[in-house]
Parts: sequence; structure tokens; C-alpha cells
Amino acid sequence: MDYPSKLIEDAVNQVSRLPGIGKKTALRLVLHLIKNKEENTYALTQALDKLRSNVKFCNFCHNITDTDCCAICASHKRDRRILCVVEDVKDVMAIENTSQFNGIYHVIGGVISPMNGIGPTDLKIESLVTRLTGEQSEIKEVILALSPTMEGDTTAFYINRRIKDLTGKITVIARGVPVGGDLEYADEITLGRSILGRTLFN
Amino acid sequence: MDYPSKLIEDAVNQVSRLPGIGKKTALRLVLHLIKNKEENTYALTQALDKLRSNVKFCNFCHNITDTDCCAICASHKRDRRILCVVEDVKDVMAIENTSQFNGIYHVIGGVISPMNGIGPTDLKIESLVTRLTGEQSEIKEVILALSPTMEGDTTAFYINRRIKDLTGKITVIARGVPVGGDLEYADEITLGRSILGRTLFN
Repeated sequence: MDYPSKLIEDAVNQVSRLPGIGKKTALRLVLHLIKNKEENTYALTQALDKLRSNVKFCNFCHNITDTDCCAICASHKRDRRILCVVEDVKDVMAIENTSQFNGIYHVIGGVISPMNGIGPTDLKIESLVTRLTGEQSEIKEVILALSPTMEGDTTAFYINRRIKDLTGKITVIARGVPVGGDLEYADEITLGRSILGRTLFN
Repeated sequence: MDYPSKLIEDAVNQVSRLPGIGKKTALRLVLHLIKNKEENTYALTQALDKLRSNVKFCNFCHNITDTDCCAICASHKRDRRILCVVEDVKDVMAIENTSQFNGIYHVIGGVISPMNGIGPTDLKIESLVTRLTGEQSEIKEVILALSPTMEGDTTAFYINRRIKDLTGKITVIARGVPVGGDLEYADEITLGRSILGRTLFN
């Protein structure tokens, strides 16, 4: 596409590097910024700059935080005997929103994916081992809450092998038919797993 | 949603103000920026800041440009007798991409929309009148290339009334079935118009 201005072209190229945003959407966003007040653009860019330069990761669980220790790790109300291993900050937020978990987290920052050149050493797995072997560790159960994909399963398998002698119990989150879903539309693997993993009706 | 960090929250709020981007997408984009190199975020924010502070509009056609007069208005190869009125910069780019138009443009910057509080004075319509009445004006035909919507039609109607004595000919772009489209799926109004606006088969 030919752009009427080099400035527009640069902005569109930068915006379209974001995931899921193509050139057309980028152009729409950029023209929206031009149409609106200058302050709005500066508020956006300043928030992003500030985020990128000041963002911190919790020293313990690697969750995103404004301080050295995140609110969850610092809280005295959380159960330090249960640790939930997740892939990403988004997963911590998703689990927190359920209000069903009161333990602590460990964010490994991705999944093992040879296709994308991500190996075990790129993830925070050694730091998990350190946490489990630490003298002050009270962890009795490790929940593996990784995505039920090929990569997620591989990562869970690797972590299980690495930590199985370091903790009392290793569990994975239940796999089955989603609540509110129609059995008819569930795929065979999910439905099959939901039968194998059936629980007592109580 | 509860965010683990105030910085994230601010960034997500700012990004989600962009059109078509909700909180979830904003969070995904922001986490993408955090995961990637700092330079990428700064390149993005700098391009946007630079665009917003340096962007100029052509003194004649109000298209976006890096200089005071856009490349189209400055070009000696364009036919100054035909002027195409469009709503937006995106429309100039779309028409330029067709390579079917060699005249000049006039970007009015929107359409009349009482619902959104946009009246004729918010658009560059007086500047169009000034262009047409200017001593150096060679304009013989004005093409109204506005969107075939209620607002676009209202705007075209208003402009037509305002300039009908100032130029030789006022035309509108053809409305009919889209090339490659199936007649069966064309709506009745479009199909009706395409019959009323039929041209000689040659």
C-alpha cells in the first residue's frame, strides 16, 4: 500500500508488529489517533513507555508486579502449602478470577516448544526447583495448570520428571467437558478423557 | 478484572481506548510488549509520538502529508480539472490503489451525522467552496465519492446544494452490484439501484 506520509508509514509498520494486527487495522488505529486529541496519543505512549521501563517480576513467583514481591506472595492469607504452576501472567489472572484457589503461584513464562526454539532452560523451571528445595519451603502439593496442548503436556511431563522427588504430591487440573457445553459438540478426546477421569457423584 | 500491577492496568486502559480493542485484547498486546525487547516498545511509542506531533494536513486538499502541500496536489501529472470529494484519508488511499483516477482530491474529514454531533461546519466544506471559487480554479467536475450510507447521502446532498452553481458538473460514483459478487446475495436496494443505473453494454 502507498501511504501519503512517511510518518504514517512508520507508525503503521510499528503498530502492525503487534500480534493479530495487520496493516489495515494498524492504519485504522493510527488514523483514529490522528483524528483525536494529541493528549490521548501521549497518554497511550507514556503508559506503554512507563510500563516497559518500570515493570518488575516477582522475585519468587515471576508474576508481574510493581514491587519486588507480588501481592500474592506477600499476602499472609494465602496457603503456602499449595503451589500452582502456570504458563503466563494471564493464567494467574484467570485463576484468581475464579476465587477457587488460595495457594501461591509459579509463572514459568511459556511452554517447551522446539518449533519456536523454546527449551526448558528458557523457562523458570530451575527457579521452581530452588523454591521446592529451599529450607523454608512449606510446599506439599504442586498443581500443574498448563494448557491442554501438545506443548503444555510436554512441559508438564518435563516438570513432573524434574520435581517428582521434591514434593509430596503433583496434580494436574481436571480435563473434561466444559461447564455449559453441549456433549454433542465436545470433541472425542475431551469426551473420552472426561469418561476416564470421572468422579463420584455426590 | 484485577490486574497484578498498576502499570499494567494503566497500559491496558489506554490501549483499550483504541477502536475495536477490548480489555482482553489490550492485555494480550501489553503482555506481548513486556515479553519482547524493550526497544520494540520504544520504537512503537516513538513512531506514534512523532506522528502525532509532526503530522500535517495538506493546505489544499486536507490529505495527510509530511509537508505543507501533499504529493498529489504538488504533482504536475494530475488533472486539475477533476476533483474527487472523499470522507477520509483512507478513501484517498483506496482510490489511489485502483489507479483509475488521475485528478485531485478534497478530504472533508467525515460525514454529517447529527447523532454524533457532526454538522456541516465541522467538515472541510467551506474550504471546498473556496477552492471552487478561487481565481486559479480549473475545476470542471466534482466527483462525490462518499460512502453509500444515510450519513454519506446526506452529506452528498448538502454539498451538492452548496456547490451546484460553482462548478460545471457534479457526479457521484456508481452504485450497483460489486464485481465478483453473486446477484442472489445482493440486497434489494443495491440490486434495484443497479437496474435503475444500468449503462449501455459496449
